[in-house]
Amino acid sequence: MSELRFNLISREWVIIATERAKRPRDFVKPQKEKKVLEEYSPDCPFCPGNEAQAPQETLRIGDQKAWRVRSIFNKFGALSLQADKERSAERLSSHMSGFGIHEVIIENPRHNTLIPLMSDEEVTDIISAYYQRYVSIKKQEGIEAIVIFKNHGPQAGTSLEHPHSQLIATPIVPPQIRSRVEQAVRFFDSTGKCVFCSTLEEELKEKKRIVFESSQFVSFLPYAGVSPFLAWIFPRRHMASFSEINAAEMKDLAFNLKTTLAKLYYGLDNPDYNYTIRSIPVNESGAEYFHWYVSIIPRISQPAGFELGSGMFINPSLPEESAEFLRSIKA
Amino acid sequence: MSELRFNLISREWVIIATERAKRPRDFVKPQKEKKVLEEYSPDCPFCPGNEAQAPQETLRIGDQKAWRVRSIFNKFGALSLQADKERSAERLSSHMSGFGIHEVIIENPRHNTLIPLMSDEEVTDIISAYYQRYVSIKKQEGIEAIVIFKNHGPQAGTSLEHPHSQLIATPIVPPQIRSRVEQAVRFFDSTGKCVFCSTLEEELKEKKRIVFESSQFVSFLPYAGVSPFLAWIFPRRHMASFSEINAAEMKDLAFNLKTTLAKLYYGLDNPDYNYTIRSIPVNESGAEYFHWYVSIIPRISQPAGFELGSGMFINPSLPEESAEFLRSIKA
Repeated sequence: MSELRFNLISREWVIIATERAKRPRDFVKPQKEKKVLEEYSPDCPFCPGNEAQAPQETLRIGDQKAWRVRSIFNKFGALSLQADKERSAERLSSHMSGFGIHEVIIENPRHNTLIPLMSDEEVTDIISAYYQRYVSIKKQEGIEAIVIFKNHGPQAGTSLEHPHSQLIATPIVPPQIRSRVEQAVRFFDSTGKCVFCSTLEEELKEKKRIVFESSQFVSFLPYAGVSPFLAWIFPRRHMASFSEINAAEMKDLAFNLKTTLAKLYYGLDNPDYNYTIRSIPVNESGAEYFHWYVSIIPRISQPAGFELGSGMFINPSLPEESAEFLRSIKA
Repeated sequence: MSELRFNLISREWVIIATERAKRPRDFVKPQKEKKVLEEYSPDCPFCPGNEAQAPQETLRIGDQKAWRVRSIFNKFGALSLQADKERSAERLSSHMSGFGIHEVIIENPRHNTLIPLMSDEEVTDIISAYYQRYVSIKKQEGIEAIVIFKNHGPQAGTSLEHPHSQLIATPIVPPQIRSRVEQAVRFFDSTGKCVFCSTLEEELKEKKRIVFESSQFVSFLPYAGVSPFLAWIFPRRHMASFSEINAAEMKDLAFNLKTTLAKLYYGLDNPDYNYTIRSIPVNESGAEYFHWYVSIIPRISQPAGFELGSGMFINPSLPEESAEFLRSIKA
């Protein structure tokens, strides 16, 4: 018999379809092609020595020659600061030109590495780059939200091998961010508490969905996760905006993110995944009701017509069972 | 320069990324494996003669031996009428057992056909089956919404070859349906008009995004479509619920759906796709503010970290250009 579970943060019901539930190992993709990559690829614009092939740099961590992380403008940016940010409307059609920022964060000089295989210091540099770009772009007039995200593998929307993340800064608050904030406000207004802090407290008490605890962060599979192995990493300290993170927390987030991704890497044989940092809109920081977090979405099941037609998800796995499996994976 | 467009129906902004826009033909998947299927497959539980392998039948159009369309319970149903529909809550976790209905509609006895290749009468039988199951399930106590949908191909979430659709009836109103209704109510309250009727009127005036007009239905690519070739089929007559469709409209919807899908089939070389019928929740029919429609979503681009993290979509195609291309395809 399947079960419907209510996600207190999104305020959405999810179907946990235990009739068709798969065991954790069933989510390993069979016969995945293994390609052996070199540390340097002469055609890759993200590799050291090929910087001239890439668009303008916006941040560099490390030396001119021995950089550790770089951010650059996206060559085919979805949004640009050159665009006008005025809105216009003709009859029923409102539109505006594509004002905003689209950057690529090159995570490491090595072409053939991955976060689970990097040193803790290397991952800390990536988080530091996210932070530096976030706080710098936050000051830009006309920017309402900053979305930091990573696509890993073709099922997650990228065919580029060189490890990289992206950042898109938008001139409007995207709908899912607005909706999460509205739901959090409702919870705060009725209880006086942050729904994220309350959820974290409950997860730590129940323990059964926890994946990994570090000093400042906790990763867990949410009670009503919409897809298999969907994982959240919450900061223990209440912070509405990612820009409030401190140096010790950056180091610990790097450790937690690396460990959680390593458990997925070794447990599910390097699955494709996306992750994103969900933060409050840039001009609403400091709020008591919102709490930023990292959402990791392995792309191992395909939303189909029901999900697209209703916005309601069928998760063919049990979060408790998947979390137990990930806890057992050494990373 | 890219453009942001506002979808008046979902009230969401979409990025139309013309910098990276592809030409219509670029969405044809290269080297797609062509598998020649037989009309009958001995192992397929949906093929005639194998009915005993399939779960209980709920509808049959045609004779016992020569059926034309059947609906059956889904063998691994996500929801079931056997479940209890009470909700319960412990601390922060609300849940209920999986009460509802999950059926499969076997569209045709032939294993190797597809809607674009069927006769008009055969497609009308499918629409008729949707209608008959919809009005019958609508009377079931505890059902709040009925979602009819189709998954075609692996990218759309199915590996079953035999042509089939599905129906899921839920004990709650799914979030996207609730949100569409709320937005439609706001438009109605401020203008006194149905946002769907107004959109259709505008599309018919502008003409440039129309794909196919039949006597009772119009298919078009919406101004702010979230993905390439996303198509809507609107009934010309205002109806909030799919259950209000009449016999002449069923026949015309079959013709319009078949023609629109055939244009995708011939134009994009049989792309994977989902479609869904978006109708008002079952207990709210007759409303002036809502209007049911069919949404066809070709699965030819992959939402990535930005979309999953923000709910905002980047569409790398121009709806006007894609519509012009589809109009040129003979079907």
